[in-house]
Amino acid sequence: MEKPYRIIEIKESVFKNNSERADVLRKELKEKKVFYINLMASPGGGKTTTLTQVINRLKSKYRIGVMEADIDDDCDANTIHEKTGVKVIQLHTGGLCHLDCDMSRQGLDQLGIDNLDLVILENIGNLVCPAEFDTGSMINFMILSTPEGDDKPLKYPLVFQVSDTVIINKIDVKDAFGFDVELCKERVLRRNPKAQIFPISAKTGEGVDALCEHISKLVEDWKK
Amino acid sequence: MEKPYRIIEIKESVFKNNSERADVLRKELKEKKVFYINLMASPGGGKTTTLTQVINRLKSKYRIGVMEADIDDDCDANTIHEKTGVKVIQLHTGGLCHLDCDMSRQGLDQLGIDNLDLVILENIGNLVCPAEFDTGSMINFMILSTPEGDDKPLKYPLVFQVSDTVIINKIDVKDAFGFDVELCKERVLRRNPKAQIFPISAKTGEGVDALCEHISKLVEDWKK
Repeated sequence: MEKPYRIIEIKESVFKNNSERADVLRKELKEKKVFYINLMASPGGGKTTTLTQVINRLKSKYRIGVMEADIDDDCDANTIHEKTGVKVIQLHTGGLCHLDCDMSRQGLDQLGIDNLDLVILENIGNLVCPAEFDTGSMINFMILSTPEGDDKPLKYPLVFQVSDTVIINKIDVKDAFGFDVELCKERVLRRNPKAQIFPISAKTGEGVDALCEHISKLVEDWKK
Repeated sequence: MEKPYRIIEIKESVFKNNSERADVLRKELKEKKVFYINLMASPGGGKTTTLTQVINRLKSKYRIGVMEADIDDDCDANTIHEKTGVKVIQLHTGGLCHLDCDMSRQGLDQLGIDNLDLVILENIGNLVCPAEFDTGSMINFMILSTPEGDDKPLKYPLVFQVSDTVIINKIDVKDAFGFDVELCKERVLRRNPKAQIFPISAKTGEGVDALCEHISKLVEDWKK
């Protein structure tokens, strides 16, 4: 049976000047009026569930496309398709732990962005390597989930430094894991003083409205 | 105030023949009768808490040393020191997402292994890159925690392929995350049919005795 979304094997990039190429891509996306978000998190941080909640609140306002990057499997693309109905493709990285700008461009070309307002890349579940590569997005989002612990900004500095939006997910279970939201916020802001932080539960929907208002504001401010 | 453990900045390896060098290291460790375990997991999977539980049960039987690898910070070395009292050093990788054999050898040299029976490397929290590098250990352990979801063997194939011991941690909260232990076991075994799987709660101690018996058996069988 044919799947309602495609699975694309993206190739490792051979270009050295990733940052410059990312600036070029950003400029092209600006001309096309496509706002592009790169979403990073640990494995199991709740990227797909968060996206589902966000997309279902924003899809009447924006035409949204999603690129699901994974080393293998396509369960996330399937989830996005089934639960939101928006345009989605699955990217396979052939074992690679991150996506650089050229790989993200391959994905955008395959997704097709001419009729989209907002594209979200769900990056590989990894707090280390993806943070090193500019994907050409307008902004990096990251999710830290409470079961991972409030010490993660201490241990994984770069991903917190490069992410201007930090989502603290699974706050419905924070007490079971002794997760201190205020302490974590302090630690996040020490890495990136301009980070905006959104505690949510993607499971219950708590906090997701505020996150969606934030995304809308980002898109509208950028269009001006 | 001087810390009761050292922090070592390890250097990125320049050697291409990592697997061969790992075989050499394994042979040397065999001669010195030091059993070496490489422990991998996602950020926040519970590596340090699991180690604390295991070490406090095994430290009267074996002389144990721990290498805590992190990109930054030394909270894990501090935890191991405070909660177990065994020999521990903190390794910093300078942003690098993994340890190869030469980096693990730098750590072992600094730790000092002459009077140890068992050394455990707590690798960088990452399900992708560490799995690609043979550290010279006798065996790879990995931890999957239930908040991460039972689909992880589908998405991160390599780390499950190379890990002969798989610990499913945080089973005390599995129901809150809809984690299906039996389904997860099936998926783990599809990646590595000889994997031995131990559901535990490092928080409550459930299942840790069986894990420790398994480790003792590994060490004793290897000594023969």
